[in-house]
Amino acid sequence: MPNFTAVDKFLESHLTESLEELKTLTAQPSVAAQNLGMAETAQLVKEMLQVRGFAADLYDTGGFPVVIAHQQGTSDKTLLIYNHYDVQPPEPFDLWTSPPFEPEERDGRIYGRGISDDKGHFVSRLLAIDALLDIYGDLPCTIKFILEGEEEIGSVHLPAFINKHRDTLSADACIWEFGGVDHRDIPMQYLGLRGICYVELSVQTAAMDVHSGLGGSIFPNAAWRLNWALSTLKDQDEHINLPDFYDPILPPTEMDVQMLSELPPVSEEYRSRYGVDQFLKDFQNETELRIAGVFEPTCTICGLTSGYQGSGSKTVQPAKASAKVDFRLVPNQTPKQVLNQLRAHLDREGFPDVEITFLGGGPPARTDPEDPFVKLVVDTSAEAFGAPMQLVPMVGGSGPNHAFINTLKLPVVTTGIGYPGSNAHAPNENIRIDLYLKGAKHISRIIHAFGQA
Amino acid sequence: MPNFTAVDKFLESHLTESLEELKTLTAQPSVAAQNLGMAETAQLVKEMLQVRGFAADLYDTGGFPVVIAHQQGTSDKTLLIYNHYDVQPPEPFDLWTSPPFEPEERDGRIYGRGISDDKGHFVSRLLAIDALLDIYGDLPCTIKFILEGEEEIGSVHLPAFINKHRDTLSADACIWEFGGVDHRDIPMQYLGLRGICYVELSVQTAAMDVHSGLGGSIFPNAAWRLNWALSTLKDQDEHINLPDFYDPILPPTEMDVQMLSELPPVSEEYRSRYGVDQFLKDFQNETELRIAGVFEPTCTICGLTSGYQGSGSKTVQPAKASAKVDFRLVPNQTPKQVLNQLRAHLDREGFPDVEITFLGGGPPARTDPEDPFVKLVVDTSAEAFGAPMQLVPMVGGSGPNHAFINTLKLPVVTTGIGYPGSNAHAPNENIRIDLYLKGAKHISRIIHAFGQA
Repeated sequence: MPNFTAVDKFLESHLTESLEELKTLTAQPSVAAQNLGMAETAQLVKEMLQVRGFAADLYDTGGFPVVIAHQQGTSDKTLLIYNHYDVQPPEPFDLWTSPPFEPEERDGRIYGRGISDDKGHFVSRLLAIDALLDIYGDLPCTIKFILEGEEEIGSVHLPAFINKHRDTLSADACIWEFGGVDHRDIPMQYLGLRGICYVELSVQTAAMDVHSGLGGSIFPNAAWRLNWALSTLKDQDEHINLPDFYDPILPPTEMDVQMLSELPPVSEEYRSRYGVDQFLKDFQNETELRIAGVFEPTCTICGLTSGYQGSGSKTVQPAKASAKVDFRLVPNQTPKQVLNQLRAHLDREGFPDVEITFLGGGPPARTDPEDPFVKLVVDTSAEAFGAPMQLVPMVGGSGPNHAFINTLKLPVVTTGIGYPGSNAHAPNENIRIDLYLKGAKHISRIIHAFGQA
Repeated sequence: MPNFTAVDKFLESHLTESLEELKTLTAQPSVAAQNLGMAETAQLVKEMLQVRGFAADLYDTGGFPVVIAHQQGTSDKTLLIYNHYDVQPPEPFDLWTSPPFEPEERDGRIYGRGISDDKGHFVSRLLAIDALLDIYGDLPCTIKFILEGEEEIGSVHLPAFINKHRDTLSADACIWEFGGVDHRDIPMQYLGLRGICYVELSVQTAAMDVHSGLGGSIFPNAAWRLNWALSTLKDQDEHINLPDFYDPILPPTEMDVQMLSELPPVSEEYRSRYGVDQFLKDFQNETELRIAGVFEPTCTICGLTSGYQGSGSKTVQPAKASAKVDFRLVPNQTPKQVLNQLRAHLDREGFPDVEITFLGGGPPARTDPEDPFVKLVVDTSAEAFGAPMQLVPMVGGSGPNHAFINTLKLPVVTTGIGYPGSNAHAPNENIRIDLYLKGAKHISRIIHAFGQA
């Protein structure tokens, strides 16, 4: 390993300056869901890259623009860094201690909407690049950035955009937009995401709601049609009844199970944090729960709406009913398969009247735990974080990693400045300044080692 | 039949004056659901009765007061008239042509909130009494009025109030708060109401909603628990699965079926008005549809609510879910039976976690179509309305008629000034002035005949 004394000294001495730059970016609202400040933020991000010598451009996507930047390095290796410049809506405002778009430092943390998800990750990476450029004069590998503006609204245009710009985005490895430590302050390497197929199921049985004293006896009831249709999708033992649903599934490997078994226990924390009396199944141990959480598909009702929902009673038979349903997918399921299976299932069960609206999704994707880039990232983590990185083969959530893994054929790794108390997507979102510095140290080491590899 | 020339002449010559009184009462808001003007209206109603020689008082009910009034007649017969002084909320205001509490006459109609339901019925009855008092000097039978202030919010206190004041309210027959003509202008005699048991079913599986990427795999889902529980209540062929649910039911008599078969067809009107492609069952004829509509019990989902209900997708697993469900009951079912059956059913099916909240209800009740008072009311209708009254053994809706039929042991008949275009419970509620006069003519004939009977 090279001596990183000079790099670390730069990072430490330029930390305040970098945090000021992060505060400026955080003070610029960029709420994709509310179309707030998006163009201004894309422009700001482009300029932040340009001042560091990156060639940077905005690209049209059909939605909010993507920023792509690149800077030539001294080796023939190329590292692609993925971030996003959009943030979650700040509401509810009254639960914020300081205003969401006026970043404020308190007790070693800085608070603001989007400062953890995802602006802090981005700017800490720029700090690492500043250090390398300052110490070495140039970058040890070519670095490309891609920042999208729609991550918080489902990355709707990103997979098609990446497919179209495969050549521009060609690289040898990819660093994901997030990463960080768990509750023990151990840095975690998340190597895969489940896929998702999110649909709305809706039924309409009449032109208007009808008094239940009349309609209940003689007209079809949209809420009942929906209820019966949903009840056929999944049995009470959690078996999902779509045709061939389980056929494409790859079971976890021995190594996957081994990695999951080495993770710290979570069940007691889940019980207390979420106020859950019992789990969905009678898990025999933590590993079984871990496996179910990431290597099994789900069919989750996320929302139900029909008829009267106020206080007290209203005697009405609803004309319309709908449900939001998400299917989490595991390798090698795809949203397209599930949509076809769902239609076939509903028709077969006598529910051709239940309409399916696809609200978004993507396939699962994972990086091979034995990929050399994973080893490089893990090896460089201990010096930065003070603890070696722990491997997690898959997590339960979903995201556009499939576009990087399947389309661009890149190993994708996570590292960054996140921690369990960051309140991402919630009021009082924040970063820990100590982790911000550690994240920058890790990135500078990854870039350096990757250039030498 | 006596000669009603003088009575009718009085009604016609005092019509304008009576409508002015009705407008004054209608201009006084009395929205029970919004606690608006209730005490003022109860007081106004009491005074309207007192000026006609009634002894009238307000009675505490635990909710809005009941007005009870009586005036001695020359015979030993007592007629009880039930009305209510509360009205539905007027919203949405922007759909009213004239303001809801500023009664306005247009094209032979008068518009205003509550003018049909139920203030017009009440004041037209006062007009009939004015005529009899003017022509004869006294009443041919004792008349008692009971007006409640909670009809539009479920008559919550009325049954217990009536039970407590059985002696004060003792009578020989009862005239219901509403009545009127159908779309052919034929006066209808509605002889019974179904019962109702309205519940909220609710489930809570966690202290808070959880990200579906986590919760979907390992925590119970409130929306799924509710869905599965509901799906056990009723089969797709409309069979309700509560234990012993159908045991107490009396089938319609031959006379009931005969009465229903004589009613005009409704299926085409239902199809077009409500935009329904097909009925709930494959009814073979209008009579089958009529029977199902009033002599069969129902289990209707009136509302569903859980999790995310906005546009697009939100990946959340709901901690809470609830449904509003109403059971319409037929003789001799009771709400208490159904509540017990529902708890037993949910426990038996493995849903002790589904809580039942009783939101109101009452048993079904019907008046014997062969009761002499029914015959009296029907016989006196032709002269008033220009067409003989048609008998309807039961209607699909529900109301507190059981307190009058079962507790006070009275035959209950309907007559009044209603018509299908009255827009009760909707904007531009109105009465037809011609029907107002016809209703008063009928009431005066009923009172007169009842005193002689």
